[in-house]
Amino acid sequence: MSRQHQCTPGKPIRLAEVSTKAKKLHDDRKEAEQEFVKLRDELVELQRKLYAEGKHKLLIVLQAMDAGGKDGTIRHLFRGVNPQGVRVTSFKKPSEDEMAHDYLWRIHRAVPATGMIGIFNRSHYEDVLVVRVENLIPEKAWKLRYEHINHFEKMLSDTGTRILKFYLHISREEQAERFQARLDDPKKNWKFSVDDLEKRKKWDEYMAVYEDAINNCTTSWAPWHVIPSDQKWYRNLAIGRIVVNTLRDLAPEFPKTVIDLGKIRVK
Amino acid sequence: MSRQHQCTPGKPIRLAEVSTKAKKLHDDRKEAEQEFVKLRDELVELQRKLYAEGKHKLLIVLQAMDAGGKDGTIRHLFRGVNPQGVRVTSFKKPSEDEMAHDYLWRIHRAVPATGMIGIFNRSHYEDVLVVRVENLIPEKAWKLRYEHINHFEKMLSDTGTRILKFYLHISREEQAERFQARLDDPKKNWKFSVDDLEKRKKWDEYMAVYEDAINNCTTSWAPWHVIPSDQKWYRNLAIGRIVVNTLRDLAPEFPKTVIDLGKIRVK
Repeated sequence: MSRQHQCTPGKPIRLAEVSTKAKKLHDDRKEAEQEFVKLRDELVELQRKLYAEGKHKLLIVLQAMDAGGKDGTIRHLFRGVNPQGVRVTSFKKPSEDEMAHDYLWRIHRAVPATGMIGIFNRSHYEDVLVVRVENLIPEKAWKLRYEHINHFEKMLSDTGTRILKFYLHISREEQAERFQARLDDPKKNWKFSVDDLEKRKKWDEYMAVYEDAINNCTTSWAPWHVIPSDQKWYRNLAIGRIVVNTLRDLAPEFPKTVIDLGKIRVK
Repeated sequence: MSRQHQCTPGKPIRLAEVSTKAKKLHDDRKEAEQEFVKLRDELVELQRKLYAEGKHKLLIVLQAMDAGGKDGTIRHLFRGVNPQGVRVTSFKKPSEDEMAHDYLWRIHRAVPATGMIGIFNRSHYEDVLVVRVENLIPEKAWKLRYEHINHFEKMLSDTGTRILKFYLHISREEQAERFQARLDDPKKNWKFSVDDLEKRKKWDEYMAVYEDAINNCTTSWAPWHVIPSDQKWYRNLAIGRIVVNTLRDLAPEFPKTVIDLGKIRVK
C-alpha cells in the first residue's frame, strides 16, 4: 500500500515545510480527473461489500482550516455511495449535554458500526486545536488529551476500526481566494461567517497547534495524512487513493451462504 | 480518607485470602444499622449539593457473582436520594447494535454528566469476566482490554469523574443460601434463573477472572474495593462509608449567586 502523504510516528513534521500544492503527478488535470472517476466507481463497489460483509469499520477524520475543503471532499468522493452505509457526523460547538460529559463522549457515540464508513467532519481534534488557540482550557488539561486520544484510537483500532485521518493543507492565500468566492457567489454566501475572519487572523497559531496535534497523534494505528489541498482535483485524488487502497486492503467480500440456495424454490 | 477494603496498585490480592465475612466492627448489628441510617441521610444531603453545584461526576461500578447483592446495595443505599440526580444503568447481554460497536461504546454513553451520580449494575468488567470463562473471544483480544479499560477510566478521571469500583465478595455457601431463598420465596422467584446454576458450577473459574480483573485494573485513579458481603448489613455499611467519604472529599456546595438576591422583589 502506498504511504503517500502519510506521517510517520516519531518523525515530526513542520507544516511550513509541507507544500500545499499538488505534485506534478499528471500531465494535465484531465488525466487526474479520469483516474478519480475510476477510483470513485471502485469505492462504490468496495463499500457495498463492506456493508454486506459487516465485519470491518472504517473511520475517516477530516480536519482543515475554514474553507480547507472538508465538505467538498465528502461531496466529491462519496457521491454515488449508498448513504445507508456511510454516516457523516459534523461536530460543531458542543451542546450543553455534551459539555456536561468528557470531550470524547460525543465522539465515541458517533464511531462507525461494523460494515459502516463513518466520516467525521471535524472531530475530537478540535479539542486540542481551537481550545488551545482560544485558551478555553488550561495547559494541564489539553496536554493530557493527546494521550487520551491516542489511547481511544488504539482501542478503536484493536476492536476492528480502521482509522484514516486527513489534514487538508491549504495556504493562507488559497483561503483568502476561497473566502472571497464565498462573498462574491450568492450560492456560496451561506458558507461565509464573520467568525472565520477572526480565526484567519490567528493563522500562525492554528498552524502551530495543528502541527502539535499531527505530531503528537500520529501513531502506527492511526497516522495522520497531510494532503496538499490548494488544488481541489489533487486533494480529491489523493484522498480517494488512500481511502480506496485501505478498502482494497480490508478486502471485503459478499458473504457466502452456508445453505445451498440453488435448492430453494420460491413458490 | 479511610482506605478500608481498597486495593493498592502493584499489590495484587488473592480473593481466596480475603474474607467474605464482616470484621467485628460493631458489638451488634443494630449499632451498624444506626450508623448506616445516618450515613444515608448525609448521602441525601451531599447528593443535593453535588447536583446543584454541577461540577463533579461520580461513577459507582458494582460487580459481583449472582446474588452477590448489587441490586440490594443500590436499593438500600440510594433509597431517599433524588432520582433526578442518580442514574442506574444495568448492563445486560449486549444488543445487536451494541455488538456492532466496540465493547466500551455502550459504557461510555452511560457515564454520568456533571452533578450526577452514575451507578453501573454490572459494567465493562463483564467484558473481561464472562467472555473469558465462556471463551467468547480469543485471549489476544481480552488481554488488550485491561489496558483499554485503564486508559478509558484514566480519561474519565482526568476529565472530572470520580470512580468507585466495588466487588461484592460472597462465599460459595452464601450464594447457595440466597439461591435457595429465591427458590423458596414467591416474592424472590423472579430473580432466579436456571442459567445462574450453570455459572455457579464455574465458581473457581469466575474467582480467577475476577482476581485478574481486580489486579490488572486497580489504578491510582480507579482502585477496586473488595467488600466482604456475606452479611448484607456490613456490605451496606462499608459501601455507604466509602461513597459518603468520597462525596465529603469532593465537598460539593450550593452555588453562590453573583447578584444580590435580597434586592429582588417578586411582584
